[in-house]
Amino acid sequence: MAKKRDIGQQSIALHKKWGGKISVVSKARITTKEDLALAYTPGVGAVSSYIAKKPSRARDFTIQHNTVAVISDGSAVLGLGNIGPEAALPVLEGKAALFKTFADVDAFPIALNTQDVNEIVETVIRIAPTFGGINLEDISAPRCFEVEARLKKALSIPVMHDDQHGTAIVVLAGLINAFKITKKDIKKSRIVIVGAGAAGVATAKLLYHFGVRDIVMCDSRGVLSSSRRDLNVHKQALVKYNKRNVHGDLNEAMYEADAVIGVSGPKKIVSRQVAEMRDNPIVFALANPVPEIFPEEAQKAGARIIATGRSDYPNQVNNSLVFPGVFRGAFDHNVRMITDTMKVKAAQALAHVVKKPHEKKFIPGPFDRGVVSAVSNAIR
Amino acid sequence: MAKKRDIGQQSIALHKKWGGKISVVSKARITTKEDLALAYTPGVGAVSSYIAKKPSRARDFTIQHNTVAVISDGSAVLGLGNIGPEAALPVLEGKAALFKTFADVDAFPIALNTQDVNEIVETVIRIAPTFGGINLEDISAPRCFEVEARLKKALSIPVMHDDQHGTAIVVLAGLINAFKITKKDIKKSRIVIVGAGAAGVATAKLLYHFGVRDIVMCDSRGVLSSSRRDLNVHKQALVKYNKRNVHGDLNEAMYEADAVIGVSGPKKIVSRQVAEMRDNPIVFALANPVPEIFPEEAQKAGARIIATGRSDYPNQVNNSLVFPGVFRGAFDHNVRMITDTMKVKAAQALAHVVKKPHEKKFIPGPFDRGVVSAVSNAIR
Repeated sequence: MAKKRDIGQQSIALHKKWGGKISVVSKARITTKEDLALAYTPGVGAVSSYIAKKPSRARDFTIQHNTVAVISDGSAVLGLGNIGPEAALPVLEGKAALFKTFADVDAFPIALNTQDVNEIVETVIRIAPTFGGINLEDISAPRCFEVEARLKKALSIPVMHDDQHGTAIVVLAGLINAFKITKKDIKKSRIVIVGAGAAGVATAKLLYHFGVRDIVMCDSRGVLSSSRRDLNVHKQALVKYNKRNVHGDLNEAMYEADAVIGVSGPKKIVSRQVAEMRDNPIVFALANPVPEIFPEEAQKAGARIIATGRSDYPNQVNNSLVFPGVFRGAFDHNVRMITDTMKVKAAQALAHVVKKPHEKKFIPGPFDRGVVSAVSNAIR
Repeated sequence: MAKKRDIGQQSIALHKKWGGKISVVSKARITTKEDLALAYTPGVGAVSSYIAKKPSRARDFTIQHNTVAVISDGSAVLGLGNIGPEAALPVLEGKAALFKTFADVDAFPIALNTQDVNEIVETVIRIAPTFGGINLEDISAPRCFEVEARLKKALSIPVMHDDQHGTAIVVLAGLINAFKITKKDIKKSRIVIVGAGAAGVATAKLLYHFGVRDIVMCDSRGVLSSSRRDLNVHKQALVKYNKRNVHGDLNEAMYEADAVIGVSGPKKIVSRQVAEMRDNPIVFALANPVPEIFPEEAQKAGARIIATGRSDYPNQVNNSLVFPGVFRGAFDHNVRMITDTMKVKAAQALAHVVKKPHEKKFIPGPFDRGVVSAVSNAIR
C-alpha cells in the first residue's frame, strides 16, 4: 500500500474525478409516454392515494424500506475534529458507497448546518419520513449521546450512532477472539479503556452488557473513579464499572490489566505500561492514523495480541465490518430498535467469521466472506 | 394508453415490484483494501481536510454540484390535496427518477414531517450543505410563496417551487406557439387565468414579466379586482394585472378574452364562456385528471387551440419538460438563482423546440429531442 501522504493525494485526485462518490439512479425504465404515465402522473396518483389511507404502506411502495440517512453535523469528523458539514460530506458519501457495495442498502448523506442538539434532533425527526433507518456519524461527545437517545425515543425506525456502536461491536468481536487465543475468560478479566468519548463509552457499556465486570476507563485527566469531581453525567455513569475502585492515572489503570483498548489519540500508551500488564497482554490501539502505541513497540514491551484502526497492520478494527450488516439485518427482519442484545450477538457472530483465530488474524477483513450476513443475521 | 383506473392499478402493482423507484449507487469501485483506503479511511481524511480549509471546495469533490433535494410537506400532492409526507414520497421519487432519466441530475426525495412554514424553512436550510439545488414540490398556496421566497434569500443555491415556475414556463412556451398559430400578438392580448393558487400566481407573474399587460385572474369567488375585500397579500398583488378593472365572475373575465388558462379544478369552464371569447380562442384546461373543460367540448364551442395537463390528449402541459433542464442548466452554468429572465428564455427556447407549431402539436413532448438542452441552455 502507498504511503499515507500519497494515499491522501491520490484520494483527493480520485474524488475530483468522481465528483461525488454516489449517484441516484432510476429503477424504473422511463422511455415512453406509457412508462411516464405509470412511474409518474397520472399513475403515481393511485399509489399516493393508497398510501394516504395508511401511511405505513409507504414501506412497501417507496424507497423507505431500504434507505438509510447518514447524518452528521461535522463536529467530530474522523480524527480531524470540528471541521463542519461540507468537510464531512466525503466521509458520509464514503459510508453510503460502502452501504451499497457491502450490503445493498441505499444510503444518502445528510450534512447538517447546525451543531445544536435540539436543532439536530428536530431536523432529523422532520426529514425522517423518507427513511427506514438513521445512521448518525461523526457527532462529538457528549452531544452524540443525547442526540441518539432522543431520536431513538422519538422515531420508530432504527437509529444508530456508528462511532459508538459500530466501534463497540467490532471491539467486542476482537476481544472475544483475543481472549480465546490467550485462553483467559473475558468475563473475569480486567479491561482498560483509554478515552471516554463516543467510542469509549459505548464500548464500556457493551462489554458490561456482555458480562465483563472489571472495566477501568481513563479520560485525559486519568481514571474515572469515585474521587473525580469533574465528571459529566455520562462519565459518572461509568464509574460503577470500576469495581476495584482504581484511582490515579493510566499507570494505575493498566497495572495488571488483561487488555487495554485505546480509543483516544496518538501515543497515549507507553511501553512500560504494557510491560506491567498481566501475562499475554491484549493491546487494541485504535487511534487513527497515529495509534496510542505502535504495534512494533507494544510487541517489544510484551503485548501478545495487537489490533489497530489502520489497514496497513493486521487486525484492523473498522466500523465498515458492522454498519452495513446492522442496517441490512434491521431492514430484512423489520427491526425498529437496535438493542444491546443484538449488538452482542452481532459481535459474537463477527468473531465467529474467523474460524481459527490467531495473533495475525483474529478480526475479519471487510472483504471476507460472511461478514455482512453474520452481522445481519444477528439483528433480529 | 390504458384507462385511468387500469393505469392506477398497474402503477400500484409496479411500485410494489420496484419497492422504491430510485436507488443510490456507488460511483467508486470498492473491491480491495486499496480501494477502501482511497474511497474511505484513511484517504478520505485528506479530502475532508482540504474542504475544511475552504468549504466551497465541496462543489468539486462531493455530490453537491449535481444533486437536488426534491422537498415536499405533502400538503398539496398532485390534485389529491393534503395527504401527508409518506403519500408524497412516490411523487418525489418519480421526480428524482425523471431528473436522472432526462438530465442526469442526481435528485433525492425529502418528505417533511412538518407543514409549518418556519419549520420547513429552517429544516431545508439545515440540510442544505449536501445539495446544489432545492426543488420544492407539492406545497400548498399561499404557504409555498413564503417558503420559496425565504429560502431563496437564505441560500446561495438555486431554489425553485416547481408547481409554480415549472408550470408557468410550460404555459408561457405553449402560449407563445399558440399565439404564433393564431397570428395574434401575445403582448397585446387579453389572457384569463382561472385559479389563483401556486401555478396561477406564478403564471400571471411570468406572463407579465414577458410583456403581457392584460391579465384577469379568477379564484373561486370571482375576478381578482379592486372591489374585492377578501384577498390575501399574494392575490392583492395580482390586481394590478387586471388593467381594464374587470369585475364579477368568470363570465365577465372570459368575455372577449384571447386565451384562458385553467389551473383550478374540474369543469370550471363552460361552453358558453368559450363561445364569448374573441376569435380563435386559446383554451388551456390544465386541471388533472378532469380538466376545466374537456377538449371535445371546448372545440365544439369554438376553441381553436387547446392544451391539457393529460398525456392522452395532444399538447400536454407537463412540468417534466422543465425541471430537469432548469437544474441541469443551473449546475452546468453555476447559476445560484433562477431569475424571471431565465424563465422567459427557457419558455422561448421550449417553444422553439416545435419547429412548425400547429393545432395538434405546439407543445413538445417529454421525449422530444432537444427539450432538456433548450431549457438548460436558457438557464445561465
